[in-house]
Amino acid sequence: MINQFKNFIQSNQLFSEGIPVLAGVSGGVDSMVLVNLFSLMNQPFAIAHCNFQLRGDESNADEKFVKELASTLKVECFTEQFDTKEVARTEKISIQMAARNLRYDWLEKIRKQNGFHFIATAHHRDDSIETVLMNLIKGTGIRGLHGILPKQGKIIRPLLFTGKNEIRKFALENKIAFREDSSNIKTVYERNLIRHKVIPLMEEINPSFKSSFENSIRHFVDAEALYELSIANFRKKLMKQKKSYALIDIPALLNSIAIETILFELLQLFGFEEKSIEQIFNSLKSESGKEFLSSTHRIIKDRKKLFIVEKELSDSEVFLIEKKKSQTIPIGENKIEIRLKEASSRTKHGQIELDADKISFPLILRKWKSGDYFYPTGMKMKKKKLSNFFVDLKIPLHEKENQFVLQDTADKIICVVGLRGDERFALKSFTKNFITIKI
Amino acid sequence: MINQFKNFIQSNQLFSEGIPVLAGVSGGVDSMVLVNLFSLMNQPFAIAHCNFQLRGDESNADEKFVKELASTLKVECFTEQFDTKEVARTEKISIQMAARNLRYDWLEKIRKQNGFHFIATAHHRDDSIETVLMNLIKGTGIRGLHGILPKQGKIIRPLLFTGKNEIRKFALENKIAFREDSSNIKTVYERNLIRHKVIPLMEEINPSFKSSFENSIRHFVDAEALYELSIANFRKKLMKQKKSYALIDIPALLNSIAIETILFELLQLFGFEEKSIEQIFNSLKSESGKEFLSSTHRIIKDRKKLFIVEKELSDSEVFLIEKKKSQTIPIGENKIEIRLKEASSRTKHGQIELDADKISFPLILRKWKSGDYFYPTGMKMKKKKLSNFFVDLKIPLHEKENQFVLQDTADKIICVVGLRGDERFALKSFTKNFITIKI
Repeated sequence: MINQFKNFIQSNQLFSEGIPVLAGVSGGVDSMVLVNLFSLMNQPFAIAHCNFQLRGDESNADEKFVKELASTLKVECFTEQFDTKEVARTEKISIQMAARNLRYDWLEKIRKQNGFHFIATAHHRDDSIETVLMNLIKGTGIRGLHGILPKQGKIIRPLLFTGKNEIRKFALENKIAFREDSSNIKTVYERNLIRHKVIPLMEEINPSFKSSFENSIRHFVDAEALYELSIANFRKKLMKQKKSYALIDIPALLNSIAIETILFELLQLFGFEEKSIEQIFNSLKSESGKEFLSSTHRIIKDRKKLFIVEKELSDSEVFLIEKKKSQTIPIGENKIEIRLKEASSRTKHGQIELDADKISFPLILRKWKSGDYFYPTGMKMKKKKLSNFFVDLKIPLHEKENQFVLQDTADKIICVVGLRGDERFALKSFTKNFITIKI
Repeated sequence: MINQFKNFIQSNQLFSEGIPVLAGVSGGVDSMVLVNLFSLMNQPFAIAHCNFQLRGDESNADEKFVKELASTLKVECFTEQFDTKEVARTEKISIQMAARNLRYDWLEKIRKQNGFHFIATAHHRDDSIETVLMNLIKGTGIRGLHGILPKQGKIIRPLLFTGKNEIRKFALENKIAFREDSSNIKTVYERNLIRHKVIPLMEEINPSFKSSFENSIRHFVDAEALYELSIANFRKKLMKQKKSYALIDIPALLNSIAIETILFELLQLFGFEEKSIEQIFNSLKSESGKEFLSSTHRIIKDRKKLFIVEKELSDSEVFLIEKKKSQTIPIGENKIEIRLKEASSRTKHGQIELDADKISFPLILRKWKSGDYFYPTGMKMKKKKLSNFFVDLKIPLHEKENQFVLQDTADKIICVVGLRGDERFALKSFTKNFITIKI
């Protein structure tokens, strides 16, 4: 066992020899075997124990047992008592979830404060298999198949190479004392159904089910990594992510494979959930102008683009403008009129006129922000920061704060609304179509 | 049911309305409901029934039942009797596998001969779920998770939108007669364990297990497509596939993610199995010169390359030559000597001398083949086909047949052994290192 343990730590690069580790110890057989293995290999470690106070005297006896262990092994011992039921009640989560959150938060705090490099937990192969089966039963994507990972950030699981039976056998052979966790048998009904009924049936079909399932899980871990790579490539290809908004190219998306899954992966970043992503997916081929909301973001569907903007911003300050003959956008007490015209007709004074064919639609109307720049008309293509432009024009502060810009989807500011157009889009003798912008 | 059926056919683009389809019918409830649904929607179809003669009189009664159905529905009926046990015995496969092969081969034959566009089978959602669970129990990669696909080549499964319970209910309500398949209850022990014990337990944990599992399966189908895309990209990036050999770039492979899985995907194309791919994976970082065999191919591990060549060829005719000071390769009664030298020493006459620094190692020594060309030394960089080169030199037929060429891994022939070097690698005044080749 000790050799397998060392090999597993090495081949998964869990930690380098001699680096101090904090071990989460409940007093159950798994964590008792974990610290005994650490001890056998002369690994520097400390013990951390959470008393969730869920089983009265029993919980306190566990704590005492762990403290005694620490003094026997002559290692440092951290303990903490939690009012788990109260936390679950106030945070409106299950007691199990509350215990889990309290545990990992506290372990991380202790780790940081005391300079441990990693937190070791005693999860083993059977836990991992049960987790995957539970995900499969409840419904999952490919990310639900990787099981419990040997290393995740600062958490390491050095016992994942082995199962419950082997751990019990090792404890017995090495006379390692442990406490039975009564909750393990009485409660956690679903997990025990899997452990004591589902898995034995699977072993009836395939006697080496556990090891072949573990093997499958390793395949799924790799498959997941390759899946993530594909998703990252599509993200790069299909999505333009800017500071205040994002754009997804609909025709390119419709041309890819696994469209719905890719859309899901892109949109869940903005707080959209499966149900609403399904609706967005169904709208891809239909008309423009539809809007969808998540708790944080707004999506506006254009003919060729999904325009995603933060809800807070978008409510008052950002608008997506399609290529239409004419439209009027109310902003506070003002309104902005945008008209698309052919070169034969010319416009009145007081309007900004720009070459429509040079502009990438849809347009984005938003408040200006620091760092914005453009090429004011009449300045011979001189690049100018908006902040300086406002200073030159002596725009008072309160007006400056409410100044809007129109930018195109090639990220160029095409005009500062009400003030000046951009030279790059200025009318030339050969201009065929132009837009007028009036505030 | 009929509307769901039509929707499923449409949304999965199984076939266009009115196109004639061949339906596989056993006489069981699934296939009886399938043909009744075809009949209800006025779909042109014919019936095909396999009598595997595995259950004596019962099998013959099934056949009679299906024939009567066909005459009632006034559709064409194809039947065939198979000596399934005998086929299983001679082909050394299970009776189940034999029946499966016989069935699909025969259905395809009937389909082709009679101009049907597709073969419809009566697989339903429960079959698909059971298949995935079976794969998970026995061990699988991501490809084992897609379940039964609605469309696979010429096979379509229009009942996959629904489950056994719904099918039985529809048969009952519409007074559709069917025959119980006794083998379904008595035999196929494993599948029935899943059906009658594992799935009910899972439904105890999640009452809507079946529909959420179906949903998961749809996610896995997309994940698989994205996985395949990643694999295809790595194949393009890491592997050079030529007519007679393939090369895998080891440093680039070691730099990628999910190395073992990628290696598996690349090498299984050449008949290598999981166990030997594991060995190859473990050898990647170790010394050169190791060899691995599949039933069809040979892999030679170089420092930077895996060189994969057909076994038949490689046994007698293809050799991989690393950059070494000197080596001698026996070919039949001859031998080829290759020496690596520094420019200070010059070689004797009768040897071919080539600039070692212009050559991409490892080299491949192989028999010439038609289409080969090179730039013979002394011909001012004139490209020449080997066949013409041999004619010019008046090489007799039997010698021509045994002529070897050395090519480098940039796919250039560097010399025709014993006859002539290539001008592109000829010695120049600035040559530092060169190799000599002598037969």
